[in-house]
Amino acid sequence: MHNELQTRPALRAIVAVAVLLGMFGPTTASRSAADAPADDKAKKAVQEVLDAQQAAWNKGDLEAFMAGYWKSDDLSFYSGGEKTKGWQATLDRYKKKYQGEGKEMGTLTFSELDISVANADNAIVRGRWQLKFKDGKTAGGLYTLWFRKVPDGWRIVHDHTSKAD
Amino acid sequence: MHNELQTRPALRAIVAVAVLLGMFGPTTASRSAADAPADDKAKKAVQEVLDAQQAAWNKGDLEAFMAGYWKSDDLSFYSGGEKTKGWQATLDRYKKKYQGEGKEMGTLTFSELDISVANADNAIVRGRWQLKFKDGKTAGGLYTLWFRKVPDGWRIVHDHTSKAD
Repeated sequence: MHNELQTRPALRAIVAVAVLLGMFGPTTASRSAADAPADDKAKKAVQEVLDAQQAAWNKGDLEAFMAGYWKSDDLSFYSGGEKTKGWQATLDRYKKKYQGEGKEMGTLTFSELDISVANADNAIVRGRWQLKFKDGKTAGGLYTLWFRKVPDGWRIVHDHTSKAD
Repeated sequence: MHNELQTRPALRAIVAVAVLLGMFGPTTASRSAADAPADDKAKKAVQEVLDAQQAAWNKGDLEAFMAGYWKSDDLSFYSGGEKTKGWQATLDRYKKKYQGEGKEMGTLTFSELDISVANADNAIVRGRWQLKFKDGKTAGGLYTLWFRKVPDGWRIVHDHTSKAD
């Protein structure tokens, strides 16, 4: 009986620790090996959003392309010295720039992708974009995307795009 | 005695929960009110790095300006269509661009700052930069910075800068 009294609280404490570790996970400064499966899952989800965006652009479907962005008035889009705020304004900017009179969308390719998972619901994506137009001309540059896991899934909440000179 | 036996394990469990909550903190999708004091502290630390950078630039001290960046070969710097990798290469780029023959550093102002704390060791900073030169000309644009809390403190691990046309 003496032994039982001694062991039980210790056992309970161990169970409590195990349960709570599972619930709250590590919050250390760098992502540990324990995060690897979750990080891989996040990377895959982000990659899928980018693949879907590229495919949508190349079908000329800007609304489907915009599905990769957070559908919020707080979405932010930076390009050159110009800020665009909100999902609708970002769609309008794309329409004006690539579907306006005498404009064409071209063929979009993303390359040199780096998807860095910062934690369970934040990722930073770096990459290069290139557009090829019918006349053989190209445009391109770099982008940095801040992805967050929102109720709809992983979405771009901030996009900073720059163009090569 | 019966009561004491019943209460002690429950009390231990409560203490264990309290201790573990303090150790591991919340990992919910959005930052809660409970994170506010920690977020304010992080914001303040990030703001201090940016203030120090602006002051260093305006003294013509590029090395001190570079103290805001992660001193690592993995630091990344994007501008236009050009990638620079590593702390030393980033310093060399600044030197060439602003201290080369016939160049001047100008007076730097950061404005329209938005510091978003993603979690305990990641923050996204958006802002506008402007340089004023002796002849009255200006240059400027936008930047997005990914700050991480590294052993030295909060540092820029990735900088995406773009210039207004």
